[in-house]
Amino acid sequence: MKLISKAKAFGGEQRLYRHQSKVTGTEMEFSVFLPREALEGFVCPTLFYLSGLTCSWEEVVTQGLPQMHAAKHGLIFVAPDTSPRGDNVADDDAYDLGQSASFYLDATEEPWSDHFKMETYLTSELPKLLMGALPVDEDAMGITGHSMGGHGALTLALRHPTLFHSVSALAPISNPVSGLWGRKAFEAYLGEEEAHWDDHDACALIAKLGWEGQILIDQGLADEYLEDQLKPWAFEKACRLANVDLTMRLHGGYDHYYHFIASFMADHIEWHAKRLE
Amino acid sequence: MKLISKAKAFGGEQRLYRHQSKVTGTEMEFSVFLPREALEGFVCPTLFYLSGLTCSWEEVVTQGLPQMHAAKHGLIFVAPDTSPRGDNVADDDAYDLGQSASFYLDATEEPWSDHFKMETYLTSELPKLLMGALPVDEDAMGITGHSMGGHGALTLALRHPTLFHSVSALAPISNPVSGLWGRKAFEAYLGEEEAHWDDHDACALIAKLGWEGQILIDQGLADEYLEDQLKPWAFEKACRLANVDLTMRLHGGYDHYYHFIASFMADHIEWHAKRLE
Repeated sequence: MKLISKAKAFGGEQRLYRHQSKVTGTEMEFSVFLPREALEGFVCPTLFYLSGLTCSWEEVVTQGLPQMHAAKHGLIFVAPDTSPRGDNVADDDAYDLGQSASFYLDATEEPWSDHFKMETYLTSELPKLLMGALPVDEDAMGITGHSMGGHGALTLALRHPTLFHSVSALAPISNPVSGLWGRKAFEAYLGEEEAHWDDHDACALIAKLGWEGQILIDQGLADEYLEDQLKPWAFEKACRLANVDLTMRLHGGYDHYYHFIASFMADHIEWHAKRLE
Repeated sequence: MKLISKAKAFGGEQRLYRHQSKVTGTEMEFSVFLPREALEGFVCPTLFYLSGLTCSWEEVVTQGLPQMHAAKHGLIFVAPDTSPRGDNVADDDAYDLGQSASFYLDATEEPWSDHFKMETYLTSELPKLLMGALPVDEDAMGITGHSMGGHGALTLALRHPTLFHSVSALAPISNPVSGLWGRKAFEAYLGEEEAHWDDHDACALIAKLGWEGQILIDQGLADEYLEDQLKPWAFEKACRLANVDLTMRLHGGYDHYYHFIASFMADHIEWHAKRLE
């Protein structure tokens, strides 16, 4: 785990790390903000943020000032990459498949299965790496994300409830098996047998596994992907049927992008901080 | 004044405008954040933010979340461009001269004098344009900026004290006549006669004109340009000799860039909001 860069921010430090991943078989990068408390050696609650299609760890560093809000609550904020990368890693010309578009699962189909093992990377290798090197409280980890990353946050939390103790999402792809983005990715990564897809669909997972805590979702109503790709209503219905506490906040006039994420980042970090205390 | 894009943010709206400038003879772009109060038609205090070398109006839209802080205080936040631009506009291969590097003055020397009239643009044309189109309170305008933009904020406020009622700066070029950036730019834009340069040097201006209000400066101590280019000590001395209230805050460990700006943006917006109320 090699420190690539660091800068002081809000009394803490914004860092970029690179490491060789055994799981993906590639070098992986992630950014982490350490609040003052962590720099002083105190064990801190930790929030993972998963980004959307076309992004890397980089965008969220400037989207919504997570450092400011994390510093306020003494939270470590980790932004992993959205996929394995490299010249030897499978890719596709489309923005919604391959590099930057892992959908945060372990691919079973060629050529993706060689490196696209993001679920195992994010739920096993990366947390262990962080716990060994930084004052991450292993009993206080939460996960959130935007769009494809919101899908990742919901599905990884539901599938790994002993690892993640809080979960929220911004404009998540809530029911990927019924949208074009999700169906294309799942067919490529998981194969044509749709029965396997439900294991990575937030609606199907909430019905099957439930969730003991509460879930926060923010959604802009001027979001161009609302009805065709994100489908928050399907997730709301699934939570209702599964008797899961969901706070679904709808925001008139907000679109899918930067200013939407920025406007509600503070609330999400506070949501996790309160539940990870 | 043509609206190029807009997005809802923090209950207000982040907009990008383009217009034909009579002063620079080019199309100019600027971004503006309108808080909810402005969208409802109430006249609001307005803060101009001038950016540094290599930037345009664009970077600060994501640097330090000015929208969040401006929304909190009901402030309009305007980010003009750093120079005129275009294929027919003089330029230089160096990053510190020409397009993106106007130093916010009216050039008197060829080839710059054709279009580089940023002082007149920022203190006459742009405020009038804004007042005619948006609920800008002409009696409550402040100015701030970073690096070259900090130089611009200080010098334009000192030279136009009836226009700007509050001023602050982040890591400003405080004494350009004594640093390489400033000397190179002033020689190109203003000619070899150094006596003319003092009219655009914050230290010389504070000695000559004073300032009735208070000034806030934030400066990182890990800033690579601190001693050779920025010279806050020279400005501090000039304020002391001129009996001008200065709050100079030095911050150990902070560099010149994004995370420094982000860490102290909230304080600057609050500083202006209190003085423009």
